[in-house]
Amino acid sequence: MTQPAISDIAAPEAEPARAGNRPGVGGRVGMVGAGQLARMTHQAAIALGIRLTVLAVSEDEPAVLAGARCLTGSPDSLEDLAALATECEVVTFDHEGVDPAHLEALEEQGVRIAPPAAAKLLAQDKLHARRTLSELGFPVPDFAAVVSIGEFEQFAAMHGWPVVAKAPRGGYDGRGVWIVESRDQARQVIEAARGEALLLEPMLEIEREIAVIVARSTVGEKALYPVVETVQRDAMCREILAPAPIEAALAGEAGRMALEMADAIGSTGVMAVELFVTPDGLIVNELALRPHNSGHWSIEGCVTSQFEQHLRAVLGLPLGSTALTSPSVATVNVVGTESGDPESRLAGALAIDGAHVHLYGKESRPGRKLGHVTVCGDEPGPTRRAARAAAQALEGMAA
Amino acid sequence: MTQPAISDIAAPEAEPARAGNRPGVGGRVGMVGAGQLARMTHQAAIALGIRLTVLAVSEDEPAVLAGARCLTGSPDSLEDLAALATECEVVTFDHEGVDPAHLEALEEQGVRIAPPAAAKLLAQDKLHARRTLSELGFPVPDFAAVVSIGEFEQFAAMHGWPVVAKAPRGGYDGRGVWIVESRDQARQVIEAARGEALLLEPMLEIEREIAVIVARSTVGEKALYPVVETVQRDAMCREILAPAPIEAALAGEAGRMALEMADAIGSTGVMAVELFVTPDGLIVNELALRPHNSGHWSIEGCVTSQFEQHLRAVLGLPLGSTALTSPSVATVNVVGTESGDPESRLAGALAIDGAHVHLYGKESRPGRKLGHVTVCGDEPGPTRRAARAAAQALEGMAA
Repeated sequence: MTQPAISDIAAPEAEPARAGNRPGVGGRVGMVGAGQLARMTHQAAIALGIRLTVLAVSEDEPAVLAGARCLTGSPDSLEDLAALATECEVVTFDHEGVDPAHLEALEEQGVRIAPPAAAKLLAQDKLHARRTLSELGFPVPDFAAVVSIGEFEQFAAMHGWPVVAKAPRGGYDGRGVWIVESRDQARQVIEAARGEALLLEPMLEIEREIAVIVARSTVGEKALYPVVETVQRDAMCREILAPAPIEAALAGEAGRMALEMADAIGSTGVMAVELFVTPDGLIVNELALRPHNSGHWSIEGCVTSQFEQHLRAVLGLPLGSTALTSPSVATVNVVGTESGDPESRLAGALAIDGAHVHLYGKESRPGRKLGHVTVCGDEPGPTRRAARAAAQALEGMAA
Repeated sequence: MTQPAISDIAAPEAEPARAGNRPGVGGRVGMVGAGQLARMTHQAAIALGIRLTVLAVSEDEPAVLAGARCLTGSPDSLEDLAALATECEVVTFDHEGVDPAHLEALEEQGVRIAPPAAAKLLAQDKLHARRTLSELGFPVPDFAAVVSIGEFEQFAAMHGWPVVAKAPRGGYDGRGVWIVESRDQARQVIEAARGEALLLEPMLEIEREIAVIVARSTVGEKALYPVVETVQRDAMCREILAPAPIEAALAGEAGRMALEMADAIGSTGVMAVELFVTPDGLIVNELALRPHNSGHWSIEGCVTSQFEQHLRAVLGLPLGSTALTSPSVATVNVVGTESGDPESRLAGALAIDGAHVHLYGKESRPGRKLGHVTVCGDEPGPTRRAARAAAQALEGMAA
């Protein structure tokens, strides 16, 4: 029971006066961008007592609505990036849309960037990534950089139609990627690119898409997450299944590759490596040097979420356990439909047992990622079905 | 792989323009108070897309530092409480320090309060709670309300010294509670109370303290959390062990009692029932009609945290699963010492495998709750030791 000394006797005390001084913070992190990744990083930062400041284009972005400290400005402005840097010990990223030259300029000014500009460029420029990873000996698709229809046809002659053409910079969720079936279509793509080089790749025979997240801290500590399967629909990742239903040897290979890659390119923070499983083995598709959709499941599905891990890593704090919290975890993205905001349909999703709902506070538009649902379970089938049902409820779709 | 139609061909697209309109919200909740409970409720609200607005005395309170929408004002001001009510669908609480008359006045104005004023009073006034719960047939200690030394002595004559004296209102963490050993000490307590009634109870033989959290929604749905043991030191809860190491029959009895009590008093939201295990069975100690320290372990230790559950309950949304996520969960509070802010010692705590650190952003003062650490594990012993070690690291104490 209670054990106060009798000398404590006094009239009932009022709530103690609130402290006027600002408390300590466990670190000051700046994040370029204020989307859902910044929003979920903010949630993790609150628990750790870390102060996150986001550079937001506007104050209705997801992280700002969730209450992250906000500097309004543009990721295209070196001045705004420098202003963010003065607020924090280290600058990191919610997206890839920052001019690599600005990042180099910041580094020259002594700003700590995680990941460093040179590593970040591998997520910003697909052509640079293909060349670098190929030189480092990682398996990438055959590729070529082309600017003319002649070069395009030469590639098609060698690898056959269709050809996959990609804008080296600026694409995401299938934007900036075209399946080119013929010479006529190739000409259209070349014209649309207006003299910019296009990255060409053969159409691969893909058995499955998997992803693996690796964290590497600023002091070189690494932590590997279980390999997941990512299920795409309409060129967008819709479902993430952890662990990936693949052979242990293949998962082990993917994990080793990610660990080696993190060291080889000197990444800091969390990095997602997206891979194709093909009849010829694993092929690296894309890198994201930041928290990634394929790691959202880790919020409930791992001991340490990718968001907390990213904060630990960029601040050089010890990394946390990446062990699964349950045998099977499924995350299903909530994508905008014509039927309004998912927030109005919260009850339907919460009625599903074990559904962890994450909404990003974004205005609903068809095809836009508005949130996700994670379910942790014992068996992959029921786990996935429950997560799907909750996501469909939020989307206003019949389950 | 990617499947965009060829008709999508265009120059690489820029990031889509951000929406200018405010997105929908899954509910608008107002919380009186902005301490750590409001802070952790805010974290849960972010995921659900629920808009939490706190009534804060100052802008350096934990929930405001975490970015909750904030109305600055006093819980003692009916005007400020009414202003909060206009911001939201339902008003709920981070603490007990609100004038019950104000809550009744708000209800008369048609404001939805969760829990209702009449139920909340059971957490605000210990004497009222003893009387009400006794009338309802729940086991409470023998008690008396006294204002004079004569009445005090009469109680001591009947039950023996020492006597436990409590201020009916305003106490917490052992404040407002005195162990009175003698007539002289009784006189001091009576004088200090300045004519206010004191609640007297016999000194009970306590084998163990346990707590159980029950959620009851505004539509009457209930969810019961596993019973926990709460370990006190210096009259403050220091450790929470889930599930409580007690016989299943006793845990079952505590759970049934909490469920019956929630219905009997008409609580809405989360309620914590603190109980003594005595040689004569269970005795109800105190109620908290809000998220409670004894439920912090549920953030990682249960499928649905008490904070998310509270939001669901006060908004009438379906309640979530209260199943354990691991066989054993331990939470250890981080209490201020003379050695500065725990934020400066984050690395030591994060080095401990599985330690989930929660810091509240409060200025460090000796004896003040500044945070907590939760560890989920297979066995109670190692789980508790790991949580303790991490908390001690944050406190700057040798493990």
